[in-house]
Amino acid sequence: MPVNADLQRERDSCPFDTEALTLFLDGSTQRIARRREISAMVESDPVFSNADNIFKTRPERFASALRKARRYEELRQRLRPSRDEDLLLSAAINETLPTLLHYLMFMPNIRALCTDAQQAAWLPRCESLEVIGCYAQTELGHGSNIRALETTATFLPDTDEFEIHSPTLTATKWWPGTLGRTANHAMVIAQLVIGDRRYGIHNFIVPLRDVKAHAPLRGVRAGDIGPKIGFTTMDNGYCVFDRVRVPRANMAARYASVDRHGVYTKKGGDSKISYITMMQVRAYIVEQAGYCLAKATTIAVRYSALRRQGFAPQAGGGSSSGSSGGGGSGELQVLDYTVQMHRLLPLVATAYAFHSAGRAMQQRLARLEAMLDTPGVGAALAEFHASSSGLKSLCSAVTADGIEDCRKCCGGHGYLAASGLPELLGTYLQNCTVEGENHMLTQQTVKHLLKAMAAGGGGGEDCGHLSRWRPDERCCAATQEAMATMPVLMAAFEHRAARLVAGVGALMRARMAADAARDAAWNGALVEMVRASRAHAFLLVLRMFAADAEAASAAMAPPARAALQRMVSLFALYWMERDMGDFTEDSYLSLEQATWVRGAVVAALHALRPAAVGLVDAWDFTDHQLGDSALGRRDGNVYAALMSSALKSSLNARDPVAGYEESLRPLITSRL
Amino acid sequence: MPVNADLQRERDSCPFDTEALTLFLDGSTQRIARRREISAMVESDPVFSNADNIFKTRPERFASALRKARRYEELRQRLRPSRDEDLLLSAAINETLPTLLHYLMFMPNIRALCTDAQQAAWLPRCESLEVIGCYAQTELGHGSNIRALETTATFLPDTDEFEIHSPTLTATKWWPGTLGRTANHAMVIAQLVIGDRRYGIHNFIVPLRDVKAHAPLRGVRAGDIGPKIGFTTMDNGYCVFDRVRVPRANMAARYASVDRHGVYTKKGGDSKISYITMMQVRAYIVEQAGYCLAKATTIAVRYSALRRQGFAPQAGGGSSSGSSGGGGSGELQVLDYTVQMHRLLPLVATAYAFHSAGRAMQQRLARLEAMLDTPGVGAALAEFHASSSGLKSLCSAVTADGIEDCRKCCGGHGYLAASGLPELLGTYLQNCTVEGENHMLTQQTVKHLLKAMAAGGGGGEDCGHLSRWRPDERCCAATQEAMATMPVLMAAFEHRAARLVAGVGALMRARMAADAARDAAWNGALVEMVRASRAHAFLLVLRMFAADAEAASAAMAPPARAALQRMVSLFALYWMERDMGDFTEDSYLSLEQATWVRGAVVAALHALRPAAVGLVDAWDFTDHQLGDSALGRRDGNVYAALMSSALKSSLNARDPVAGYEESLRPLITSRL
Ligand SMILES: Cc1cc2nc3c(=O)[nH]c(=O)nc-3n(C[C@H](O)[C@H](O)[C@H](O)COP(=O)(O)OP(=O)(O)OC[C@H]3O[C@@H](n4cnc5c(N)ncnc54)[C@H](O)[C@@H]3O)c2cc1C
Ligand SMILES: Cc1cc2nc3c(=O)[nH]c(=O)nc-3n(C[C@H](O)[C@H](O)[C@H](O)COP(=O)(O)OP(=O)(O)OC[C@H]3O[C@@H](n4cnc5c(N)ncnc54)[C@H](O)[C@@H]3O)c2cc1C
Repeated sequence: MPVNADLQRERDSCPFDTEALTLFLDGSTQRIARRREISAMVESDPVFSNADNIFKTRPERFASALRKARRYEELRQRLRPSRDEDLLLSAAINETLPTLLHYLMFMPNIRALCTDAQQAAWLPRCESLEVIGCYAQTELGHGSNIRALETTATFLPDTDEFEIHSPTLTATKWWPGTLGRTANHAMVIAQLVIGDRRYGIHNFIVPLRDVKAHAPLRGVRAGDIGPKIGFTTMDNGYCVFDRVRVPRANMAARYASVDRHGVYTKKGGDSKISYITMMQVRAYIVEQAGYCLAKATTIAVRYSALRRQGFAPQAGGGSSSGSSGGGGSGELQVLDYTVQMHRLLPLVATAYAFHSAGRAMQQRLARLEAMLDTPGVGAALAEFHASSSGLKSLCSAVTADGIEDCRKCCGGHGYLAASGLPELLGTYLQNCTVEGENHMLTQQTVKHLLKAMAAGGGGGEDCGHLSRWRPDERCCAATQEAMATMPVLMAAFEHRAARLVAGVGALMRARMAADAARDAAWNGALVEMVRASRAHAFLLVLRMFAADAEAASAAMAPPARAALQRMVSLFALYWMERDMGDFTEDSYLSLEQATWVRGAVVAALHALRPAAVGLVDAWDFTDHQLGDSALGRRDGNVYAALMSSALKSSLNARDPVAGYEESLRPLITSRL
Repeated sequence: MPVNADLQRERDSCPFDTEALTLFLDGSTQRIARRREISAMVESDPVFSNADNIFKTRPERFASALRKARRYEELRQRLRPSRDEDLLLSAAINETLPTLLHYLMFMPNIRALCTDAQQAAWLPRCESLEVIGCYAQTELGHGSNIRALETTATFLPDTDEFEIHSPTLTATKWWPGTLGRTANHAMVIAQLVIGDRRYGIHNFIVPLRDVKAHAPLRGVRAGDIGPKIGFTTMDNGYCVFDRVRVPRANMAARYASVDRHGVYTKKGGDSKISYITMMQVRAYIVEQAGYCLAKATTIAVRYSALRRQGFAPQAGGGSSSGSSGGGGSGELQVLDYTVQMHRLLPLVATAYAFHSAGRAMQQRLARLEAMLDTPGVGAALAEFHASSSGLKSLCSAVTADGIEDCRKCCGGHGYLAASGLPELLGTYLQNCTVEGENHMLTQQTVKHLLKAMAAGGGGGEDCGHLSRWRPDERCCAATQEAMATMPVLMAAFEHRAARLVAGVGALMRARMAADAARDAAWNGALVEMVRASRAHAFLLVLRMFAADAEAASAAMAPPARAALQRMVSLFALYWMERDMGDFTEDSYLSLEQATWVRGAVVAALHALRPAAVGLVDAWDFTDHQLGDSALGRRDGNVYAALMSSALKSSLNARDPVAGYEESLRPLITSRL
């Protein structure tokens, strides 16, 4: 079928070559080529088809995902992918594999926390997938506060074993991915007990199912925890341990160990490593936020460019019954409504911004890893920890909301599973909760910022603005155009971020002066901490996005460069508009300047409008990567796609529908 | 099982009798009693059980919903419920019945648009359910702009019939509920064509399936459109008409008709009626918003009151690995974190506020209906139309976000279908799109407000503030306590609402002065219209909530009255804080006053905290009405409920799981 004419026209008139922005996103032409190769390879393999996902029952989808997991492992063994290639492979597959946690958490945890001898014993079995593991930390009763986990690992001196036990219902391991039906081992986080002393939580490798027949081992009761809002193909699981014994050697012993006589020894150094692992995951979440938001914006922007709905806007706008009509040709593309642009284009820019932030975080991490043994590293790690916490919280929250906004922008059709958006959303939402619930996490950021501010802003590269800040600063922009320039925007974000940290400090001091205990003062300031952390994270994203765009600019043709720089400015202006109170309540912005911000947002929207489809095309998603979205198809043939999807509805399988004889016929024939 | 101890303690120490607030919500003790009777009757009938909904495939759920639809009709015929009792019955059933649109749209449409003779011919068949109808307006290509619908109804003078036809793919009827598998008739909205003239859209009753065997009639191709983000039991459908003939008498002819010779006659008066119908639906959406948000807050508040996570908050907060631990007893209820209160209690208040707004709208509608034939009614209708549009948009948007926020407040467990929140959310989300997409709808509100402002605020009871407004007004509060009083809050909401309408007007004048056409100026102001409409709607809700609470106060014991009034004030303060820029950018609030607003929010949260469980208990939801949520159970036994739900997961049906032999064994045994 030919490409939809509207979409084609958008592409023909895009003011820049989209490949230039693809290059910005990928970083090199080699990477573009490799990405396309991998994606073509995956999509040529029918096992990886997701085409009928939305019509499958959960067991059908799970079985099909297991099939993909098997093929994925075959490919890995054949290709031996680098870390980046492995990410590309997963992205190309675009389905959560039930084995995910084996690769993502179980093996890395062994590498991080086990001794060399333990690694030598376990890793080969992990590599061959004879051992498939999961990461079993969370329990029915505890997720956020892991110090309070209830599972015990009691040293048995007689047999030189640990006894893993779930003493209560709430001690049941609950949530670990891959645990429910797939894994045969778990890294279990449990309270170490020796004699009558407790030594806090430690990690233990615990066999769950037998490697031959996959039958649960004695004392292990495990299964899937049931359907979820997304993540359908993952068997998040529960597991109850009834005095299960494992050899003493199964305790991860790189940083703490128990000897034959039950003597516990702690070895230093783990904190840095565990920091690094956590920060890697958070940096990954930031980058993925950009990637997932890009998918949603691609679907919504393409659809909005071809959806024609409404005659030219008039006073009175919206729908109303009337007398003329028929056909869609004289109508506006819905993307031409300023309000639709306002809902979508800032999210397009935000996806780019998060991508840049994710990349910058990865680069900083690499530098940190290289200096792990130098003296200054502690401070750098602490700052990076604070920044990555704030960024994880911000980027996942904005992305979750943003995907849903994109869905709403598709009107009725966005409500259909066939749009691809419900699954994208449902599966994404977990990112707001895992790896530190978003609201809770902000405390870690602010704790650091308060220290840095107390120390006169000496917290390192992310905190310089804290020392520069003056309460009576005012925005210097004298025109709407000036308002949209980078120095003005950056200064505003710095001012806001610093002011809010100072506000938290002042609030706590006031409470403590009024005799509140430190705990109570801290609790009373939690709401302001969420605000301060958000402000800090926005500043960081803006810095990273601006720097990334700046660095890439030189090599770009002017039209692409202009579009990229407009996105940076729109990103800043839009989020300033959204949090306007933060910028106006202390009169940093005047009413006139606030009005300029709003005006500049609308001006930027209209300036970027001709590039809209190009900006999302540049992400270079295949239809498969967009979840076979009927609305986001590259060729724009959305109506035919919707129709052919409807024909596959499970409710259409029988005629009349199942339930007719029993319920509908009696109703219609008045035989109730 | 005994009630969870934390929940029991919350109830024992609730400062007021929850029944007092139940009375406020229901309006009379008789209504409370009748509601409980109906709900007990429904819940004693196993057909209405929803207990295993989350484990069913879509065809299974659909068949079970059809069974409920049959039983519902039996009950209706037996009980002959009043309108209110019918609402109570539907609420008690708490499942979308596939026949819904028959009752909700098809029959009301016949009553509104058909002649008495047509009603006499059709309504008895509708009452007996021999005819089950749907409302088929939206097409694949058009929803919002119904003037552009493509389906044609061409008069055939030879046979005195209309020929209903879908000339293009995009003319396919698409979305109508009940159409897919259940209905045997449709009210089809189509372009009337007589000879070579088009007369705009009109309504036609079109048989779809034969009344005996439910087989599609000749020329009709219809089915379900597939899975959605929610609304699983509804067969939203598609329908293609291939020159289907219906008698001329099937055109709804109360306000327009075609005679035997093809002469078209329009009779006046329909606009008021169609206004009324639309406004009824919107008032209903406002009330339902309160009801659905109340469900979500009930689940999240109860769970947050018994979820214990985290030792007393310390500087450093959040989780961190450490050495002590085990068990949940020394831990905080998560509802004691100020940030958790801040996420939940304002939503609790908002649910009450929307309930009051919905009730006030219904009462106004009743008054309007009584004065339909008086001269002043036009202006009153126009104002009510504007207000109901703005309210529908605001309340559905806030509720959709609010349900999701409640879900996130439940941490990991909120991600499970067993929490009840994913289905509540998914099914609710449609309200942002149907009956006028929320962003689009705001244009209708603002159009009226602009007129009212131009006329010096003479727009009637909702617009008085427009004439009182002065740009240089300032908030007069001199202390944090004063900030939280009703006159101060009301003045602030009025000022903001008026200022933003004035802002839209100024923006449009500026654009037109700069030579933009009116259309372009209108389009350029759409973003500000969304803001102005939101501000207006918040003002209306605040007024209605305050008035409702005030009116009920006299009969209430002081502690209940205090809680209710605190909710009114928290509602205002919180949404002021959320939109702080609207109040500070013109210096209406000073920095100090803005800080008081934030302080007053936190103070109100802590003041309401002891009442939190009581405030949600007062809604008096049964567990069945909460979607059998494992987290929201009245008895608080959430962990046992989660565990027993997990055991029913479809992935646990086989051991090893389906897919093991094909995919998992080869993986584990390295036989790829
Ligand atoms: C899809 C998914 C996959 C998962 N995969 C795994 C896995 O593989 N392995 C594993 O071990 N776990 C896994 N988890 C569990 C996950 O790590 C936890 O759900 C997460 O840490 C949140 O903890 P919680 O559920 O106990 O939430 P809770 O802490 O109970 O949160 C409830 C509420 O309390 C608030 N709260 C709690 N503490 C504080 C505080 N100190 N200050 C302020 N507010 C607070 C939270 O903000 C939240 O609003 C998974 C969860 C999900 C949803
Ligand atoms: C669950 C569900 C049940 C439904 N049930 C029925 C039913 O029983 N019968 C029936 O006939 N229909 C039904 N519908 C259809 C529903 O009425 C439409 O989906 C709705 O009116 C929105 O129209 P649309 O889908 O064409 O959205 P679109 O108008 O295409 O919306 C796409 C985007 O364009 C924007 N937009 C469109 N016009 C304007 C404008 N003038 N100004 C600014 N922005 C604009 C929208 O805001 C939106 O962001 C149902 C839909 C759903 C989801």
